[in-house]
Amino acid sequence: MDNFKKNIEVIKNGKANLYGKDFLLTWDKSAAELEMIMHVAEALKNLNAENISTKCFETGLAVSQFRDNSTRTRFSFASAANMLGLTVQDLDEGKSQIAHGETVRETSNMISFLTEIIGIRDDMYLGAGHTYMKEVADSLEEGFKEGVLPQRPAVVNLQCDVDHPTQSMADLLHLKNYFGSLENLKGKKIAMTWAYSPSYGKPLSVPQGIIGLMTRYGMEVELAYPEGYDLIPDVLKVAEKNAKASGGSFKVANSMEDAFKNADIVYPKSWAPYSVMETRTKLLYANDKDGLKDLEKSCLTNNAKFKNWECDAEKMKLSKNGEALYMHCLPADISGVSCKEGEVSKDVFEKYRIETYKEAGFKPYIIAAMMLTSRFNDPAALLNMMKERNLKRILG
Amino acid sequence: MDNFKKNIEVIKNGKANLYGKDFLLTWDKSAAELEMIMHVAEALKNLNAENISTKCFETGLAVSQFRDNSTRTRFSFASAANMLGLTVQDLDEGKSQIAHGETVRETSNMISFLTEIIGIRDDMYLGAGHTYMKEVADSLEEGFKEGVLPQRPAVVNLQCDVDHPTQSMADLLHLKNYFGSLENLKGKKIAMTWAYSPSYGKPLSVPQGIIGLMTRYGMEVELAYPEGYDLIPDVLKVAEKNAKASGGSFKVANSMEDAFKNADIVYPKSWAPYSVMETRTKLLYANDKDGLKDLEKSCLTNNAKFKNWECDAEKMKLSKNGEALYMHCLPADISGVSCKEGEVSKDVFEKYRIETYKEAGFKPYIIAAMMLTSRFNDPAALLNMMKERNLKRILG
Amino acid sequence: MDNFKKNIEVIKNGKANLYGKDFLLTWDKSAAELEMIMHVAEALKNLNAENISTKCFETGLAVSQFRDNSTRTRFSFASAANMLGLTVQDLDEGKSQIAHGETVRETSNMISFLTEIIGIRDDMYLGAGHTYMKEVADSLEEGFKEGVLPQRPAVVNLQCDVDHPTQSMADLLHLKNYFGSLENLKGKKIAMTWAYSPSYGKPLSVPQGIIGLMTRYGMEVELAYPEGYDLIPDVLKVAEKNAKASGGSFKVANSMEDAFKNADIVYPKSWAPYSVMETRTKLLYANDKDGLKDLEKSCLTNNAKFKNWECDAEKMKLSKNGEALYMHCLPADISGVSCKEGEVSKDVFEKYRIETYKEAGFKPYIIAAMMLTSRFNDPAALLNMMKERNLKRILG
Repeated sequence: MDNFKKNIEVIKNGKANLYGKDFLLTWDKSAAELEMIMHVAEALKNLNAENISTKCFETGLAVSQFRDNSTRTRFSFASAANMLGLTVQDLDEGKSQIAHGETVRETSNMISFLTEIIGIRDDMYLGAGHTYMKEVADSLEEGFKEGVLPQRPAVVNLQCDVDHPTQSMADLLHLKNYFGSLENLKGKKIAMTWAYSPSYGKPLSVPQGIIGLMTRYGMEVELAYPEGYDLIPDVLKVAEKNAKASGGSFKVANSMEDAFKNADIVYPKSWAPYSVMETRTKLLYANDKDGLKDLEKSCLTNNAKFKNWECDAEKMKLSKNGEALYMHCLPADISGVSCKEGEVSKDVFEKYRIETYKEAGFKPYIIAAMMLTSRFNDPAALLNMMKERNLKRILG
Repeated sequence: MDNFKKNIEVIKNGKANLYGKDFLLTWDKSAAELEMIMHVAEALKNLNAENISTKCFETGLAVSQFRDNSTRTRFSFASAANMLGLTVQDLDEGKSQIAHGETVRETSNMISFLTEIIGIRDDMYLGAGHTYMKEVADSLEEGFKEGVLPQRPAVVNLQCDVDHPTQSMADLLHLKNYFGSLENLKGKKIAMTWAYSPSYGKPLSVPQGIIGLMTRYGMEVELAYPEGYDLIPDVLKVAEKNAKASGGSFKVANSMEDAFKNADIVYPKSWAPYSVMETRTKLLYANDKDGLKDLEKSCLTNNAKFKNWECDAEKMKLSKNGEALYMHCLPADISGVSCKEGEVSKDVFEKYRIETYKEAGFKPYIIAAMMLTSRFNDPAALLNMMKERNLKRILG
Repeated sequence: MDNFKKNIEVIKNGKANLYGKDFLLTWDKSAAELEMIMHVAEALKNLNAENISTKCFETGLAVSQFRDNSTRTRFSFASAANMLGLTVQDLDEGKSQIAHGETVRETSNMISFLTEIIGIRDDMYLGAGHTYMKEVADSLEEGFKEGVLPQRPAVVNLQCDVDHPTQSMADLLHLKNYFGSLENLKGKKIAMTWAYSPSYGKPLSVPQGIIGLMTRYGMEVELAYPEGYDLIPDVLKVAEKNAKASGGSFKVANSMEDAFKNADIVYPKSWAPYSVMETRTKLLYANDKDGLKDLEKSCLTNNAKFKNWECDAEKMKLSKNGEALYMHCLPADISGVSCKEGEVSKDVFEKYRIETYKEAGFKPYIIAAMMLTSRFNDPAALLNMMKERNLKRILG
């Protein structure tokens, strides 16, 4: 049985159903639901590799709203929409009337008359991003029930203050591919560690997403950061609970070296302390520019105490056989390349550079799978239909 | 006979032909032409509801040029283009060389080599928007005749200084749907009234569009505003003439209460006085920032005298059985929601909120109908072909 | 044999193969390769005129990166992508993380997972644009070889510091069409001359592109400019070599009048001196705003000495029978229209205005041909397939 058939079998037998549902947090989803997403992503990748079109919408919009800069996710979202036949329409607050006080409820409906998917990145304000996405979802729900919208668009979280599911799921698919299977991940140690960066205010959603997801696959997840660089406490509870349920473990430590010891995978990545993000959010809302400058200054000073939190060759030697897989959501702060001193040394990054590119390469398919499963009741049947239809993506 | 067939029958028998024509002002169009637009819009809505693709272009561009902010119309235009198979390409003056003095004539041709539709919003400058659209249309006409363009793109007015036909036509379709038929609108009283807003400089095109269109359907149209808040005189003449021809009436008054009395429909909406818009246009052209600030200040002071021009529960009681239909082009200035004191009270808006969303929901289909009728010689045949082809919009 | 068939015959017999190749400079391409591009462009234009769809991608992205303003090329690129079925996704440095130091290598891969074409305009910095495009191409090559990318997107130069091949090829197709054949261009004199403009810093790529391409067709190419307004020396060498090989000639002079004498074609167009562009690039990199202001001032003062370098009726009389074809890449600085004194007089421009529009009209097809030939191994077979498939671009 070829890979495509295997994927379809798993989807069929999975009993998961994501039809009509938003994708906001991985920990709101069942194991079967996450497995469905991964297999649909793989099936789409298979079809693409065979030059078989995966277009399943003749027309329809996929709205993207980026409340923070983005290149990778923007292109992944555009690729995902395109491979299913949807057209991306940007909701740009700069251009739109949202900036002038229009309510979320109203705008959500106004942009959705012929919309299938709304992808949102909103990671700047702690306590706000996830809340905003739920508000949009509720507004769409009401609009659909009241007959305003002929269909209920699904919301896909393209990064919020709490989770970054399209990243963590792509990372998981990369691990599955790298180690051969999800089963093989059991017992593997992953070190999700803070790393030094000369910038400040990086979101918490990547480390939170990783500990919230990887703990579900029986892995030994170790979170390490300098004292004070805490994540949102609720997410740590999620990770603990997940680890218990999956037969893995979850540990928090304050040493990069300890975390790297015997690790199969390392994920060194900078973030701002939870408490700083809270303060920053308040200052941003208050438009307190001086306060923000002071905060940035004090944070950078504090960061600078931890310049030794760099993923270098020396620390990599501590990992399993000195050959742990290095992961990053990109772009990394590479010492001597993109900054003087950063998250990772030049030589370590170069060794794993191509792997990090491949890691990123799963994202368009993960997003497409989230879109597809939210809009089609029977993804297995749909994928089979695509295969049988055998419409060439590139003519010839 | 189902709704779709009824629509097709009316289109066939209507003897209207909009092929190759721009859509700039509703009062340039015959009754039969407007009726065709509405029926095509309804037919497209029917097909969409049945998951039948309305794609009629394999490729082709729909250019949009927004010289003022827009969310609703931008998404309606994108949805309309998409449902017909056209790809939106934005002409952004910020990005483009128009900002550097390039002539309208040249740009109009340069963006049109493979373009079917050009949608323009240009409502900032009194005396300029409609004129600009005609210039674009003339340039396209010349380009087509001279063999520069293989086809003559049609210009669609997405709001100018004079009219807002995609809004007023969507409003009319909403009324038709709400009251059951165009016939049923005869004798109904609609109060198009000014309303207080804490902002200034809102365009005149919505009230002008409403009085210019609704007077054609035998309605009793009453325009009410505080002294000095006049509209463009020529449009009032159009409304008077229309009312006479249709057996309806057109009246101008200075009392919101009087206008609401016995009204079947109320449309309370802020706008700037005609004379202010003239002054403002001169100041904008002269780039006189101090003058603009002074003007804004004096206008807001004047506006503030009319805070009682709010659509509240008390005034709604004056309407027919206290149950007039409230309309708005959105976003409304809602007292206690989007501003302290505004066009409409919170409770009145909330009661009709879903209705205003539905009102807006007709716009993508109205725009698509304007596009379709300008590019296809026999819309009835085309719509029938779509129905028979029965290509699923969403696969499955 | 009709035109379409003739085009296909030439493509078939041409033995050129551009599959998998970037299009950066015309002088990197063989005569057969350029001929293939032109014939594919003409075939696409034929099919479009017959309402036959030229869609050959069901899905896929065409990324555009404009590092300088653009209307014409932006729309030409969008039209080209659209006619082949590709969706344009903009890489906007303002929006993206490139602005924050991300390496070219990484971004090139991140935007390319489902991308077929990357079109780049980068003409601001002398020594940088062409170099950047090669870097992108090398990154894509690596990504494809390492299995990061399932396909190798082709880079298309939409204007760099050295060449502007989509412009010069469109110009050549215009000449072929105007004079009846490429053969007919032999012995024709083309005057590529500097012209006065009240602006400064215009790129060198148009005149360089013209002398680098037109010298290949046996033409008498005369480049004329005021002393000091030199182009990049290497490109002059290319032009000399080409002229020798094709049996034409290449001459550099310092008189507009001399260049116009007996010319069959004149192409008067402003540019900044090579040395100024070098200085400007250094100042731009150093972000030296005062230096840039001083440079602009001194350049404009110098420009002003050459206001007589205007293409006017008097000079046109010097040309072959006083009837040389006037060419321009648009927008032209037209005296008394877009500026007080400029590149061309109002009457001369008006006489040839429609011709310059037609000249521009070849660009979308040239770009589409560059895209198509880089992605399809057998363009002749593909075009025949399109013709036989006979899918209507506009339904009906």
